[in-house]
Amino acid sequence: MITKRELLQHWLGHRKLTRKTIEKFPEKELFEFSIGGMRPFSSLIKELISIDVPGLKEMVTGETGTFSHDLPLNTKEEILTRWDEDTIQIEEYFSQINEDQLHETLKLFGMYEFTIISHLLYFIDNEIHHRGQGFVYLRALGIEPPFFWDRY
Amino acid sequence: MITKRELLQHWLGHRKLTRKTIEKFPEKELFEFSIGGMRPFSSLIKELISIDVPGLKEMVTGETGTFSHDLPLNTKEEILTRWDEDTIQIEEYFSQINEDQLHETLKLFGMYEFTIISHLLYFIDNEIHHRGQGFVYLRALGIEPPFFWDRY
Repeated sequence: MITKRELLQHWLGHRKLTRKTIEKFPEKELFEFSIGGMRPFSSLIKELISIDVPGLKEMVTGETGTFSHDLPLNTKEEILTRWDEDTIQIEEYFSQINEDQLHETLKLFGMYEFTIISHLLYFIDNEIHHRGQGFVYLRALGIEPPFFWDRY
Repeated sequence: MITKRELLQHWLGHRKLTRKTIEKFPEKELFEFSIGGMRPFSSLIKELISIDVPGLKEMVTGETGTFSHDLPLNTKEEILTRWDEDTIQIEEYFSQINEDQLHETLKLFGMYEFTIISHLLYFIDNEIHHRGQGFVYLRALGIEPPFFWDRY
């Protein structure tokens, strides 16, 4: 129903929208603003960064990876630069994923035991989920978020 | 990479989590609470209800459907009952979608012209997006949302 290439293109479209969402935040609010005791948007993005490339790398190499959400990204520019670097790595690793192994179980980061396809869908869903939260932060700040359908 | 059956199961898991999210809201706040001028969570859910079954029906029958976000669902119980009725219809219509037509274009509701698979992914993504916003509303209300991975 969905090919590997289509799923990658779908994800890359979402990454473009997430990038636009990061760009909409003022520098200070990206790192400090939050609602109801939640993490600021920069921390939600760092969560995505911390699992996406290391997770894909583990799927391809089979070597158990490590991850830390506490990344040394301290400005919007640093986050956007890392986002773009990771997009290139995501394209590279994704293309190396073996389609025959998609339904095999992988204990990602030595902790989360699901099929590879489930991990991939989780990565994308988790990005949509947190970005939706970023939209609320932006609205609370009086800033119009990007259009949800703008993946270009 | 993903079969039709897997995509349906994935969506149904998300629908279970969305149902749990609706349940967490107090009656009054479900219909009245919002942040930054956004719609209350009940309205975001009504948006999903208004497109999911009518959209699937159009994919299966080919008859142009209509939709209105302004549904006569005025209590949490009414929303949950409708949610459950729609889940049954989603399973039925989804199973009737012709796999050979997935990459054909459909001008859904006479307005949105994309491939059928794009429409289906949009429905799921849009649910994750708005549910993530509901999580922020719950946090702002001092209520712990369900776990994101709880799709059972």
